[in-house]
Amino acid sequence: MNSGDIALLILDLLGTLAFAVNGAMTAIKFARVDIVGVLSLGMVTALGGGFVRDILIDSLPPTTFMDWRYLLTAAGGSLVAFYLGSKLERLSKTINLFDAVGLSLFAVIGTLKGLEFGLGPVQSAILGVITAVGGGTIRDIMMQRIPAVLHTELYAIPAAVAAGLTAVIVGADLPLIPWVIIAAAICFAIRMAGLHFDLHAPKPRHTP
Amino acid sequence: MNSGDIALLILDLLGTLAFAVNGAMTAIKFARVDIVGVLSLGMVTALGGGFVRDILIDSLPPTTFMDWRYLLTAAGGSLVAFYLGSKLERLSKTINLFDAVGLSLFAVIGTLKGLEFGLGPVQSAILGVITAVGGGTIRDIMMQRIPAVLHTELYAIPAAVAAGLTAVIVGADLPLIPWVIIAAAICFAIRMAGLHFDLHAPKPRHTP
Amino acid sequence: MNSGDIALLILDLLGTLAFAVNGAMTAIKFARVDIVGVLSLGMVTALGGGFVRDILIDSLPPTTFMDWRYLLTAAGGSLVAFYLGSKLERLSKTINLFDAVGLSLFAVIGTLKGLEFGLGPVQSAILGVITAVGGGTIRDIMMQRIPAVLHTELYAIPAAVAAGLTAVIVGADLPLIPWVIIAAAICFAIRMAGLHFDLHAPKPRHTP
Repeated sequence: MNSGDIALLILDLLGTLAFAVNGAMTAIKFARVDIVGVLSLGMVTALGGGFVRDILIDSLPPTTFMDWRYLLTAAGGSLVAFYLGSKLERLSKTINLFDAVGLSLFAVIGTLKGLEFGLGPVQSAILGVITAVGGGTIRDIMMQRIPAVLHTELYAIPAAVAAGLTAVIVGADLPLIPWVIIAAAICFAIRMAGLHFDLHAPKPRHTP
Repeated sequence: MNSGDIALLILDLLGTLAFAVNGAMTAIKFARVDIVGVLSLGMVTALGGGFVRDILIDSLPPTTFMDWRYLLTAAGGSLVAFYLGSKLERLSKTINLFDAVGLSLFAVIGTLKGLEFGLGPVQSAILGVITAVGGGTIRDIMMQRIPAVLHTELYAIPAAVAAGLTAVIVGADLPLIPWVIIAAAICFAIRMAGLHFDLHAPKPRHTP
Repeated sequence: MNSGDIALLILDLLGTLAFAVNGAMTAIKFARVDIVGVLSLGMVTALGGGFVRDILIDSLPPTTFMDWRYLLTAAGGSLVAFYLGSKLERLSKTINLFDAVGLSLFAVIGTLKGLEFGLGPVQSAILGVITAVGGGTIRDIMMQRIPAVLHTELYAIPAAVAAGLTAVIVGADLPLIPWVIIAAAICFAIRMAGLHFDLHAPKPRHTP
C-alpha cells in the first residue's frame, strides 16, 4: 500500500465514521427507535451509499462489507452516538457538520472508484453523487421522511461539483492528493454556505 | 444492428422518455421538491425498473447506466417537464398517458431481456412486470406515497398480460416486430380502460 | 441431494411460506391494497431478504427467483392468505407466530449461505440477520410503516442470536441437523417471549 492509498483509506474511514454518527443522531432525534434501530440506521447511513455504488459497478460483495475496518467504524460510530446521544444533541449543528464531511469525502471516493472500474467520467461522477447521498436517502426512506436530497438546500449540487472536479482531476492526471482533498473542501464549503445562508436550488414554478 | 434491434432500441428510449416525463410531473405535482428532486425522481422513474431487472439477472453495470443515450433521455425528459411543468400540468391526464406508454413498453422489453439471458418464461414475465412497475414504485417510496402498483386500478395486471404475451410470442417463434408492439398496445388499452372506467382488481373482503 | 440438504430445503420453504402468509396478512390488515398488492407484499416479505442477501454475496440471479418451488410457495401462501384473510384475521396472533417462524429459519439459513460463499463468521451472521429481517423491512417501507426491526420488541436480537449460534455451530463442525434447528428454536423462543412479556431493547435516553 503506498501513501496515496493509505490517505484514501483514511479519508474513506473518516467519511464512514462521520455518516455513522450523523445517521445515528438523526435516528435518535427524529424516530422512536431502540438501540437496534439506532445501530441499523447509523450503519445504513454509513455503508448504504457505497453498497449501491458497488452493486451498480458489479463489485460484489461490497468492499466495505468484507472489510472489518468499515464494519467496525460504522458500528462503533453509531454506538458512540447512541450512548453520547443526549450530549451530542445539544450541539444540534453537529449533525449537519458530520453530514457535510461524509458528503464531501464520499463524493470524491465514489467517483474515484467508478473511474478505477473503467466507467466514463459522467457515469463515475453520477456514482460519486450516489455514494454521497445514497446512505442518507435509504436512512430517510426507512425513517419515513422525504429524503433530504430531494428538497434540501444545496445537498446533491455540492456533491456533484466535487464528483465532477474529481473526474477532471483524474482526467488531467493531476496528483490525487492534495487535489481531491481540495475538491472535497469545495463541496464542504458550498454545503456549509448553503446551510448558513439558507440557499436553495430552484423549485418548480406554479406548484399547487 | 439490424432493423429489429433498432426498433427495440427506439421503443426502449421512448419508454424511458415517457417514464422520465411522468416521474418528473408526479414529483412536481405531489412533492415539495426542488430541481434536484425533480431530476432525481424523473431519472429514478425512468431507469429504476431496468436497474432492478439488471441486478436480478446479473447484467451489471446496468446497460441503461452505461449507455449515454438512456441517461440523456432520462435527464432531458425530466428537465423538460421541470421547465414546462406549469403548462403540462393543465393537461392532468398527460401524466397517466405517459405512464401507460412506459408501462406497456417496459413490460415487453423487460420480458425480452429476461428471455435473452436464458431465464424461463415465468421468470422472464415477472422480470417484465418488475421492469414496468419498478421505477414508479421506487419513486413513490421516495415520495412517501403508497406505491401505485399496490392499490391502483389495473396497473400490474396489464403489465403482466403484456409480459406473458411476450413470453408466448418468443416461445412460438413469431416475428418480434410487430407482435410485441401488439402486446404493448393491449397492455396500454387495458390500462387506459381501467383508468377511464375506474376498474379495479379485487380487494380483500372484510378489510377493517 | 443428501438428507441434510433436503432438510435445509424443507426448512427454507417453510420459512418462505411463513413469511408469505405473514406478509399477505399484514398487507390485508394495515394497507388498503388489492389482490395485486397482497400478492406483491406477500412475495416481497417471503423473498426480499433472500434477494438482498444474494445481491450482497453476488449469487445472482437469486436462487429463490430461479427455483419455481420458492416462487410457487411464496405466491401460494400469499393467495391463500388473501382468500382466507377474514378467517385468519380472527387469529390475530397468527401473524406474529408466522413471522417468528420465518425469522428463526431465515436467520439460520442466511448465515449458512454466507459461510458457504466463503464469508467470515461476522459477515455471515450479519447476512443471516439481513435475510431474516430484510423482507419484512422492504414490505414495511412499501406500506409506509416504520420497519418493525427498528423499534419492535426484540426482533433483530433473536435473529442475531440464531445467526451467531449458526456461525459457531459450523465453526465447531457440529452436525448441522439438529444443531441449527436448536438455534432456530432459541430465536423463536426469545421472539415469542419478547412478544408475550412485552420486552424491549434499550431506547436512547433523553429522546425529545
